Amino acid sequence: MPLEQIIKEIRPLDRGVEEAAAARLDSLTKPRGSLGRLEELVRRYAAIRRDPEARFSGGAIAVFISDHGVADEGVSAYPQSVTLEMLRNFASGGAAICVMARRFNYRLRVVDMGIATDTSSTPLGDVVYKRIGAGTANLARGPAMTGDQMRHGVEAGIQTARELVAGGATLIGIGEMGIANSTSAAAILAATTKIPPAKLVGRGSGLDDAGVARKIAVVERALGFHRDALSSAESTLMSLGGFEIAAMAGACLGGAALHVPIVVDGFTATAAAVIAARMHPALLDYLLFSHRSAEGGHALALEALGTRPILDLGMRLGEGTGAALAMNLIETALDLYHRMATFESAGVSGKLR
Amino acid sequence: MPLEQIIKEIRPLDRGVEEAAAARLDSLTKPRGSLGRLEELVRRYAAIRRDPEARFSGGAIAVFISDHGVADEGVSAYPQSVTLEMLRNFASGGAAICVMARRFNYRLRVVDMGIATDTSSTPLGDVVYKRIGAGTANLARGPAMTGDQMRHGVEAGIQTARELVAGGATLIGIGEMGIANSTSAAAILAATTKIPPAKLVGRGSGLDDAGVARKIAVVERALGFHRDALSSAESTLMSLGGFEIAAMAGACLGGAALHVPIVVDGFTATAAAVIAARMHPALLDYLLFSHRSAEGGHALALEALGTRPILDLGMRLGEGTGAALAMNLIETALDLYHRMATFESAGVSGKLR
Repeated sequence: MPLEQIIKEIRPLDRGVEEAAAARLDSLTKPRGSLGRLEELVRRYAAIRRDPEARFSGGAIAVFISDHGVADEGVSAYPQSVTLEMLRNFASGGAAICVMARRFNYRLRVVDMGIATDTSSTPLGDVVYKRIGAGTANLARGPAMTGDQMRHGVEAGIQTARELVAGGATLIGIGEMGIANSTSAAAILAATTKIPPAKLVGRGSGLDDAGVARKIAVVERALGFHRDALSSAESTLMSLGGFEIAAMAGACLGGAALHVPIVVDGFTATAAAVIAARMHPALLDYLLFSHRSAEGGHALALEALGTRPILDLGMRLGEGTGAALAMNLIETALDLYHRMATFESAGVSGKLR
Repeated sequence: MPLEQIIKEIRPLDRGVEEAAAARLDSLTKPRGSLGRLEELVRRYAAIRRDPEARFSGGAIAVFISDHGVADEGVSAYPQSVTLEMLRNFASGGAAICVMARRFNYRLRVVDMGIATDTSSTPLGDVVYKRIGAGTANLARGPAMTGDQMRHGVEAGIQTARELVAGGATLIGIGEMGIANSTSAAAILAATTKIPPAKLVGRGSGLDDAGVARKIAVVERALGFHRDALSSAESTLMSLGGFEIAAMAGACLGGAALHVPIVVDGFTATAAAVIAARMHPALLDYLLFSHRSAEGGHALALEALGTRPILDLGMRLGEGTGAALAMNLIETALDLYHRMATFESAGVSGKLR
C-alpha cells in the first residue's frame, strides 16, 4: 500500500477507551495506581486498539536485516560478512531473538531488506526476501539510497506489519541487524534531534576508542555533506539510509494505521521511529519504546522524543530483543487486567473515609 | 532448623563458577556484554547455585501475610479487615500475584503468619498457617513482638524456603501483604540505614498528606521509644516488628544456606532483607532486588544497601509482584544462556583485529 494512503489512515488515539480502561483498572483489588507503568501500558494498549477490553490475540516480532555501504569507513568492530552469517543464525534459530520469540510464543518474521550477498535463490529457512539492493551506498560519500529504494523500503515495512496483523498479531515488535547500521542510525538521530554526533555515537558491537572517534568523524562529515538534503523525513532517510531503517519506519506507520501498537527496540529502531514520527503528528502515540539501550546517546534521543522507555537493562544487542522483553511485560499487564478480581467480586473493602 | 545453624551454613559465592558462566556468555552469538544486566543475572544465578550450567528447575513465590498493631495509629488508608479479605482473595486466586504465578508457572505459597482473625480451623484454599499471634503489638507503644515470636517468625521463613527448595524451586521470590506493614518496614529501614523517617515513609496503599504526616510522626516516636533496643538485627525486628517481615528475613537466610537465589520484592521485603543481611556478611550476594518501588524512600534504601534493582516500573503493590516480574526476566536470561548459538556452532566471525 502506498505511503501516502497509509499516512491518511492514521487517526488520533481513542481517549474514551483509555478512560474506560482506567476505570476498570481502579476496580481491581489493588491500591489505585499501584501497578505503576503496567497500568499505563494497559491504558495505552486499549486506546491504540480502540478496545476497552484490551484483548490480546498474539505478538509478532519483525527483524529487518540489511547491509550498509558505510561499513567501508571502518565503523564496525565486526566484518560485513557477519550480516550474512547472522542471517543464517536467525534462520536456524540460534540468535537471541529466536530464543526469546520461542519462549514468549511470538511469531518471528526475519526480513532480508538487502544484505550484500543475495541468498534468495536458495532461501534460508523462513527468511522473507524484500531486498531493495545489495546494501546501501556509502552515506559518507553520497545518498545511501535512491528515492525509489526509500519508498520501496518503507512500503516493505508497511506490508510486513499488514501481514503480521492479518496473521493475528495485536502487538508488534520491531528490531534489526546489519553491520554498521548504528552509524546510519546515529546520523539520522543527529539530523532529526540536533543532538551532536559526539553525544550520540556509541561503540556499536564493540568499537575501541579510535573506532568511535572515526565513527563520529564519519557522521559529522555525512551531516555536512548532506546538509541541504535533510529537510524532510523522506530525504533524510534517502541520504542517511538503512534499508532496514526504512522498513522499520514503514512498520511503525503500518501498525498505527491498523491500530496495532508497535514496540520499538533500541538505538537503530529509534532512528526509524523518529523518521516515521516526522511523517505523521499522531504517530508517537502508537509507539511503545521498549528499553533504554546502552548504545551511545540512546537515552538522550529518547529524552528528545519526550518518551520514557519501559526497561533499562543496559542491553545493546538489537534484533528486537529489548522489544520482546517489553512485549512480554505488556502481555503480563494485560493478563492482570483480564484476570484480577475486583473489589466487588472479591468482597474487599475500599479505602477509609 | 534453628537460626544459628542456618547462619553457619551460608558460604561466600563461588567466584570460579561466576567466571565460567562469564566465559560461556562471551561465546554466544552477540557482541560481548550486549545483553547487559541479563548477563549479570546469569552470572549471579550460576555463582549462587554453584552450577556453571545455571540449570533452572522451577520458581516459587512465598507471600507472607500478617496484621500489625500499629494499624491502631491510623497509618493506613484501608481498614485492618482488608488483610483477611485479601487472604481470601489470595486463596481464591484473584490477587495480582496469583495471576502472575499462574502465568509464569511459579508455585505460589501463601503463608498466614498471624493476621487478626484466625481462619486456620477452616483453612482457606491452599493457605499455609504458621501463625505466631493475632497480629503484632503496636510498635509505637512497645515491642511489636516477643523474642520467641521473632525467632519463630524467622524460622517459619527458613522452613518455607526449605519446603519450596525441596519441592524443586531453584529461584524463590518473597513478598507480603498486611495492612500497616509499610509503617513497620519504614521504621526498620530508618533504624538500620539511618535515613530519616520523613524521607522513607510513603503513602502505603494511598494515604493523604495528613496521613503521611501522622505515619512519619509514629515512626519517629517509635524510633525514640525503642532507641536502646535497636543495636542488633534481632532486637530491631522484635521492637519494630512484622511477623511477615521476620518470615521474609528467614526466607532470605534459608535460601542462601541452600544456595538458592532470593528475589526481593519491594519496600517491605527490602526491610526484611536488611534485617537478614545484618545477620550474615555474605547474605546480600544471595539476594536479587527485583524493582525500585514507588513507595516512600525505597530508592534511597536500595542505594544505602549499595544495590541496583532490576526493574523500575513505578509499582508499589507488594505481594511479590515485582519479584515475579524479575524472576520471569531471570528465567528468560537463563533461557538465552542455555539456547543461544555460539560463534563456533553458528559459524559467525569474531571481531576484527
